[in-house]
Amino acid sequence: EVSAALLHGRRNVLLIIADDGGFEMGVYGNNRCQTPHLDALAAQSLVFSRARTSVSSCSPSSRAALLTGLPSHENGLYGLHHDVHHYNSFENVRSLPAILRENGIRTGIIGKKHVGPASAYIFDYEQTEENNSIMQVGRNITRIKPFFLYVAFHDPHRCDHENPFYGHFCDKFGNGEPGYGHIPDWTPVHYKPEDVLLPYFVPDTEAAREDVASQYTTISRLDQGVGLVIEEIRKASMADDTLIIFSSDNGISFPNGRTNMYEPGLAVPMFIKSPYDESRRGEMTDIQANLLDIVPTVLDWFDIDYPEYHILKPSQPIKLTGKSLLPLLNDEKGVESDTFFGSHITHEITMNYPMRAIIQEERYKLIHNLNAPGTPFPIDQDFYLSPTFLDMLNRTLNGRPLRWIKELKDYYFREEWEMFDLKTDPKECVNVHRKKKYKEKFSELKEKLFQWQKSTYDPWLCAPHGVLLENAEGPFCAPLHNRKYIKEL
Amino acid sequence: EVSAALLHGRRNVLLIIADDGGFEMGVYGNNRCQTPHLDALAAQSLVFSRARTSVSSCSPSSRAALLTGLPSHENGLYGLHHDVHHYNSFENVRSLPAILRENGIRTGIIGKKHVGPASAYIFDYEQTEENNSIMQVGRNITRIKPFFLYVAFHDPHRCDHENPFYGHFCDKFGNGEPGYGHIPDWTPVHYKPEDVLLPYFVPDTEAAREDVASQYTTISRLDQGVGLVIEEIRKASMADDTLIIFSSDNGISFPNGRTNMYEPGLAVPMFIKSPYDESRRGEMTDIQANLLDIVPTVLDWFDIDYPEYHILKPSQPIKLTGKSLLPLLNDEKGVESDTFFGSHITHEITMNYPMRAIIQEERYKLIHNLNAPGTPFPIDQDFYLSPTFLDMLNRTLNGRPLRWIKELKDYYFREEWEMFDLKTDPKECVNVHRKKKYKEKFSELKEKLFQWQKSTYDPWLCAPHGVLLENAEGPFCAPLHNRKYIKEL
Ligand SMILES: [Ca+2]
Ligand SMILES: [Ca+2]
Ligand SMILES: [Mg+2]
Ligand SMILES: [Mg+2]
Repeated sequence: EVSAALLHGRRNVLLIIADDGGFEMGVYGNNRCQTPHLDALAAQSLVFSRARTSVSSCSPSSRAALLTGLPSHENGLYGLHHDVHHYNSFENVRSLPAILRENGIRTGIIGKKHVGPASAYIFDYEQTEENNSIMQVGRNITRIKPFFLYVAFHDPHRCDHENPFYGHFCDKFGNGEPGYGHIPDWTPVHYKPEDVLLPYFVPDTEAAREDVASQYTTISRLDQGVGLVIEEIRKASMADDTLIIFSSDNGISFPNGRTNMYEPGLAVPMFIKSPYDESRRGEMTDIQANLLDIVPTVLDWFDIDYPEYHILKPSQPIKLTGKSLLPLLNDEKGVESDTFFGSHITHEITMNYPMRAIIQEERYKLIHNLNAPGTPFPIDQDFYLSPTFLDMLNRTLNGRPLRWIKELKDYYFREEWEMFDLKTDPKECVNVHRKKKYKEKFSELKEKLFQWQKSTYDPWLCAPHGVLLENAEGPFCAPLHNRKYIKEL
Repeated sequence: EVSAALLHGRRNVLLIIADDGGFEMGVYGNNRCQTPHLDALAAQSLVFSRARTSVSSCSPSSRAALLTGLPSHENGLYGLHHDVHHYNSFENVRSLPAILRENGIRTGIIGKKHVGPASAYIFDYEQTEENNSIMQVGRNITRIKPFFLYVAFHDPHRCDHENPFYGHFCDKFGNGEPGYGHIPDWTPVHYKPEDVLLPYFVPDTEAAREDVASQYTTISRLDQGVGLVIEEIRKASMADDTLIIFSSDNGISFPNGRTNMYEPGLAVPMFIKSPYDESRRGEMTDIQANLLDIVPTVLDWFDIDYPEYHILKPSQPIKLTGKSLLPLLNDEKGVESDTFFGSHITHEITMNYPMRAIIQEERYKLIHNLNAPGTPFPIDQDFYLSPTFLDMLNRTLNGRPLRWIKELKDYYFREEWEMFDLKTDPKECVNVHRKKKYKEKFSELKEKLFQWQKSTYDPWLCAPHGVLLENAEGPFCAPLHNRKYIKEL
């Protein structure tokens, strides 16, 4: 059986994912960090200004969401997959590589996999951290020519915890200097702290500037790696029938970034190059995109229906949260700018800090912090060791100005509900959920978020003030009456 | 190869575990709840007055700890195993059935297994909830005659959440009345609310008395089931070479009980009958016992050494926390009354509330609540629906007296450190950790608990005020400086 998609010549998909990558590239207005290959790819792509991950946790949560099209709480991979954390998706979740393999598409992964259980995420060809060094894998791109190829770079992830010897962003790994080894296809680019562009959410300090300079070096390495992948596709004569998607698994590892539901944690670069739809190449779209859209987009490309099945109970059929982005490649109005939904549970096993988020009209954003207000926001091992955070900690202790958009105290202790008007307050500094002006919108967002959680079978539906129960009419929340005591603390 | 243990005729072990079972039996001074078979077994056993589980979470955490000899945080099974929770132990943990099978012991399980991954907990013979109804399994005891047999009753677990039709404690399941089915080998015993003995930690209310009366019916069913198992052992002529251990996985599901580190959550009945050591039969020992002692006890019985191995890192060799209890069967001084250590992380997936506990000299008890003070203590679905808890909730809402040892507010919101002097305050009502008199003891317990966490590779070693890092000298805690802000809330 030959599908309509194959008849139309839609043959391959190349999905390239950066690890903690941000907007440090020309196409997104950064003229300091050198990313000629990413910019060249972007010039042939539709570029997304409003793409987000539904969960800002390193690889596992975000990548499991990306590969299943289901938010964290629904696919079962609640936190990091490796080491003591050892979270796994539900065994019977239907992942993109599984669906594609069933439909005769050859699948491959090169790079960081970081999801499990293994049986749920089998690719025909696998070169991952499971059989390679995490730092090296993702650059050996010449070994394979599959139809769906997922290239998952470890760049520009931090190295502070696992491999501090190689610099804060592994930026010295393989640079040819004594002791650092040699990556033959990489020409290191170095940056001066005074030349970097500081995002608004990074403190304006010497420590942070040096940190960002290291990050840039690794982003330029990522850029060269992307160039090599694209060149291989071209040399293999697959450029004419391959859909190329570039994005990142989550925001950069700086304050308000990775592991947060604030915009710097959620927002990711994304661009999509189709060999057929050339009309919008180099254009920027403001349509809201989510990594949860990747599965429907790739299935649309191959003209494959998402299977009908359930994970836990027959009465809970699985539906995708996202939508295909393909129609956008021809027409800005081809896709509605829908509501963003996000779901975060934990990152490292000790970092249980469940959050849910909704963004409507690209303006009204509501975050539900289920562990607030008494539990401090957790700090991951990598970020703790970063020059940026250690400097923030020391400045706070010594009473020196933080040169940041808020105080550390505010970062640790959050209100249960955080509502931001992104139009008037894009930096998310003013929590408006108690303001009269936003009262109705607050209720509306709360209700929409609740309904989404319900439709995706969220076990945390009733947290933290109720217990999730079920009767003949379905799930409902029984009140715990633990709320009124919180203020008394 | 024939081991010394086999030469001495130590052939079989029968391990019987109740589900949420407490002290409602004659041998522990309760003359209302009828348990003739348990009392008869106890009369031939050494009875423990001070046995505890290291984790008070339904089956998985406690049972994984029981079957591995390792606390929750070390065996990797951090919470419930079934449904959305889907926690598993580390794949390469070495469980008791695995070690016994390697040593030529035939192993069987009848009843509630509730641990995973399957590969780590294989028994030669399995009749569990995986291939039977959870309510029926544990009574089909006539099918097997293995050497290590683990009979895990579902009695007297609550039914409020999963099967409310059968009564609060499944006490109507199989009672022969229309609609409830029929268990042929069970003669239901019924109790009047006014006749039950209320433990001090249960409110003295009509609702709670009725709840306890239902519980008693199910305990009497457990008792009859234990009688049937023992009778089968006798009929199979195995009574003369079988070690019989009876205990429960955690405390009863009442306030301060299951899911708590308070004594009603930790304390479990335990008695051990040896066919050889008759001198102390019917005696009570005050030596501190822990479910973590089961693995070393059974291995001692079979004269098998615990294997040398590691779970995550070669530099972290696995050592058991517990000790063999066998020497006690002859001599009260055969075992030292050592320090109790406990480790709890979550129960249902939404109930993340990590706690660590230490008890020294059976008097000084310290609990570390890692999510306190701002996160309310979580309530599980079963307990929420119980008449006891619903009545507590309604009394609190209506301002009626709770008739309990504390207020609901205190139950929800706990201090980070709770220290009790069990000698002067056995009900754990007075937190003494700030009192001058206990200052030194507090420091000592904190340090001992920290050292135990370190020696068992606890990922939560530094929570909640530090980040766990490692240098050449080993793990250390880097401070977050999030503590001083807590009081400002
Ligand atoms: Ca990442
Ligand atoms: Ca239990
Ligand atoms: Mg990491
Ligand atoms: Mg249960």
